[in-house]
Amino acid sequence: MTVLLEPLLFDRSAGNGGSVGTVTLVGAGPGDPELLTLKAARLLESAQLVLYDHLVGKAVLALVPRSADLIYVGKESGHHTLPQAQIGALMVRLARSGRSLLRLKGGDPYIFGRGGEEVQVLAAHGIPFDVVPGISAAQAASALAGIPLTHRDHAQSVVFTTGHLRDAGDADGGEPDWALLARPRQTIVIYMGVATLARSCRALIAHGLPATTPAAVIERAATPLMRTLTATLDTLPSLALAAAVRAPALIVVGEVVGLHGQLRCTTATAGAADGPA
Amino acid sequence: MTVLLEPLLFDRSAGNGGSVGTVTLVGAGPGDPELLTLKAARLLESAQLVLYDHLVGKAVLALVPRSADLIYVGKESGHHTLPQAQIGALMVRLARSGRSLLRLKGGDPYIFGRGGEEVQVLAAHGIPFDVVPGISAAQAASALAGIPLTHRDHAQSVVFTTGHLRDAGDADGGEPDWALLARPRQTIVIYMGVATLARSCRALIAHGLPATTPAAVIERAATPLMRTLTATLDTLPSLALAAAVRAPALIVVGEVVGLHGQLRCTTATAGAADGPA
Repeated sequence: MTVLLEPLLFDRSAGNGGSVGTVTLVGAGPGDPELLTLKAARLLESAQLVLYDHLVGKAVLALVPRSADLIYVGKESGHHTLPQAQIGALMVRLARSGRSLLRLKGGDPYIFGRGGEEVQVLAAHGIPFDVVPGISAAQAASALAGIPLTHRDHAQSVVFTTGHLRDAGDADGGEPDWALLARPRQTIVIYMGVATLARSCRALIAHGLPATTPAAVIERAATPLMRTLTATLDTLPSLALAAAVRAPALIVVGEVVGLHGQLRCTTATAGAADGPA
Repeated sequence: MTVLLEPLLFDRSAGNGGSVGTVTLVGAGPGDPELLTLKAARLLESAQLVLYDHLVGKAVLALVPRSADLIYVGKESGHHTLPQAQIGALMVRLARSGRSLLRLKGGDPYIFGRGGEEVQVLAAHGIPFDVVPGISAAQAASALAGIPLTHRDHAQSVVFTTGHLRDAGDADGGEPDWALLARPRQTIVIYMGVATLARSCRALIAHGLPATTPAAVIERAATPLMRTLTATLDTLPSLALAAAVRAPALIVVGEVVGLHGQLRCTTATAGAADGPA
């Protein structure tokens, strides 16, 4: 199992035969390999070439055969190892050289995974592709922390958004649609929201949500280091600061957060470590 | 593998010893057993007592050992085999009799699965429980139909809501929050929305979405009978009527639907049957 970015990766023989490899975008889930789908696990166990992101768990990568080539394409917040355009171009070149590859993305490729952009590049270049969904962080966090995303008595809808703003200068200014988010009877999940937590909580209050609305930050969901901190919109930022919460973490806002104390998984095998809240 | 609703199910010996069984709520995913999580598959393969819903796929149930007891608790739209309160009471009685059970729910237990309500009953009665997330129908539909739920150029958020109204006479009148839903730059997914499709499309237009907004109905996602119909908000209802679309199906509204033609999975193994659209 080697990490290479060299011509060795490309299959020159295919240049003669003209065969094109396929690309399979696979959701790696939140980190716990037990939360991989059977399909994802099967594909990983037979992969020969894998491109993976920062948020893919080591235990997931351990399923890949030792003989496979692994390419780390990064994507830590604010520090992309390979810019998005280069990831797409690399996949196209590899597939055109005749190699099939598994593109492994944390969570679900079509929920804040930029999977749509990558597949557009493949489609534009005529590379065959397939997409396998994965458990998104919000689902793992919800199950383990005892915070149902919907609930007949509390939330008739759930919205997933992101606190990770687009690059400065973008047309939409990078601001979430706070008027949309600040509605009663829905659950708000903010991905990549730690850096902007205080601003997000203030904005939700300014747009009409009560300052006492239950809110949680869930750090490293579905890993042994998972922490769940619960508070309210006005107290969560200082609590998160005091607890030194760091990415990756999710923010969850809404009445359902109030169920956390009651609905934490209670079997010995649940494995949801709980923070100081 | 027998389906029983008889005293035989209860373990009388436990009444003496006082041991209490545990309940594990497991997301069965959209129907294709390949989209089960490894954890769900492992739990199914060792289950001795399973309570399952209408939307759980037969191929998923086939993983349960022949020696296990299966109880169908129903939940077709408008036709609950067991009312929700009775499902909770049954789980409590079974667990108190000393039997551990697997509560199998279509999709993800905490996304329109009423899992939160069931776990509240367990918690209130001191029954230990665990929750395992599952791939929700929107994720499978999204991956197979080539409709990313989020996309930097088209949707900075995705909202899941339901067209299945609460019982008449409920305080909120059973209406979705249309003003919330009819916002630009987000993807709307409506679960259980076939019966109310025409009304939903009209309401979204009335609340400000252009009538030309791309919209899709995805029937039986992740099954061999999957169909994807794409149109616009003003044309989707008549198209769905002409094609005799039936539940279970999802409605997806937003610019990302426009990517469907380009991003359909194109490998031979993708298995996404496409409808006449």
